[in-house]
Amino acid sequence: MRTVRALISYDGRAYHGWQRQDGFYSVQEAIEEALYDLVGEKVTVHGSGRTDTGVHALGQVAHFHVHTALDDDRLRHALNHRLASRTVLQRLETCRGDFHARFDARGKRYAYVIWTSRFKPPLADGLVHWTRSVLDWEAMQRAADAFRGEHDFRAFSNSGSDRKTTVRRIQSLRWIARHNRIVLVVQGNGFLYNMVRTMVGTLLEVGTGRLPADCVAQALRSGVRTDAGMTAPAAGLYLVRVLYPEPIFQGRDRGPGGVPGALQY
Amino acid sequence: MRTVRALISYDGRAYHGWQRQDGFYSVQEAIEEALYDLVGEKVTVHGSGRTDTGVHALGQVAHFHVHTALDDDRLRHALNHRLASRTVLQRLETCRGDFHARFDARGKRYAYVIWTSRFKPPLADGLVHWTRSVLDWEAMQRAADAFRGEHDFRAFSNSGSDRKTTVRRIQSLRWIARHNRIVLVVQGNGFLYNMVRTMVGTLLEVGTGRLPADCVAQALRSGVRTDAGMTAPAAGLYLVRVLYPEPIFQGRDRGPGGVPGALQY
Repeated sequence: MRTVRALISYDGRAYHGWQRQDGFYSVQEAIEEALYDLVGEKVTVHGSGRTDTGVHALGQVAHFHVHTALDDDRLRHALNHRLASRTVLQRLETCRGDFHARFDARGKRYAYVIWTSRFKPPLADGLVHWTRSVLDWEAMQRAADAFRGEHDFRAFSNSGSDRKTTVRRIQSLRWIARHNRIVLVVQGNGFLYNMVRTMVGTLLEVGTGRLPADCVAQALRSGVRTDAGMTAPAAGLYLVRVLYPEPIFQGRDRGPGGVPGALQY
Repeated sequence: MRTVRALISYDGRAYHGWQRQDGFYSVQEAIEEALYDLVGEKVTVHGSGRTDTGVHALGQVAHFHVHTALDDDRLRHALNHRLASRTVLQRLETCRGDFHARFDARGKRYAYVIWTSRFKPPLADGLVHWTRSVLDWEAMQRAADAFRGEHDFRAFSNSGSDRKTTVRRIQSLRWIARHNRIVLVVQGNGFLYNMVRTMVGTLLEVGTGRLPADCVAQALRSGVRTDAGMTAPAAGLYLVRVLYPEPIFQGRDRGPGGVPGALQY
């Protein structure tokens, strides 16, 4: 029995999220079906965490245990061949038997893409969060600075209470602005349910002037959900990278996740 | 009766090309339907030229004659409201009565997006031409230089003979390379049917070593179709801009055509 880990990108528009669930087609199910078709056994694929319906991944990580004589490269090819074109195993490698994509993860990096224009961009449907609002990006940047470091993010989650702790550390936060596009790239040691989307939703309300720039600091202090803003739509969100203490997927052909415009965060 | 011109972007994946034809849904038909719904009259929309199925536009130009009391901004909003989200009138303005989108055009700019990676990019399906071939970009650049200036492009068209002349002038040609993406931006005083795609197809065969870099010059001299290479797929092709002797669509909110990654050529 081999333990294998994979670096996965997928188009969130094509699935009801990462996690297998009855009656809905998920990324996990798609990969498990490809494995079943290949090795004739039910194999469970363990992701680093869930992504919601419509959320994209450039660098999701998952592991599974499998019996096969194929080497890593042939196994990856065989699985990609069986997958629909909306999910790709970018890298695949046999690893130590006790590697666990979720329990070993030490952090994640997400990108959120905001597109501002008067009319909906016809080629970016579902790939960006489009708004026709004129955004005060300076105010958004000021507000976002309060997220840096360790805080109780209770106010920025839509569930919250099912976790032992709602304290998380934002290790880095940066903005990339180009033409009509504003991208927030945020890395942390973990994220609560809907946390990135609620961070962004709050910043969008700061950008339109509906909330003051100091509302972020206030919501972090109070821990009250209603002190933060709305939850931004899934469409603009990308899981960019999962961080582990050990180096994984070293080598030349890691490649980008595959977003038009080569989002490289 | 007013003459109105519009700057249009659309997702080529959603249509059987620009031109109205029985039994297939086209961009022209979509805009004409929106106009019929708005003003209750059949209005013919005249584009600067056709684009094939799967070819995208960031800046197609078209004109039409219409009776309406709406000002330009309201007319644009009313039409965009009636259009599916895959076509957007980015700009619209009333113009001189004898403006003609096709006959007045003095040139066009196209971009062709090539994506190289071992596996198909899951988020760029239909938006780029994907190849797993390793391309010799230096050789492609050398070969492409031969396109500059005025030549008989007979060898680079799939019809050719229905035109009075097959001589065209390539006014500029440049490359943008970033990460896995190579973009060729080419501007000329006119293009024959399938000309850009055959130029790119030939360059791709130079890139993979199937054709020598001097084949472009040779095909331009001979005028023989089989001296040039294959016709590259529609998916990577974008009509970026149509050029007119008069300034059109001046002003602040021209905006990009709406490609993720903000392709600005």
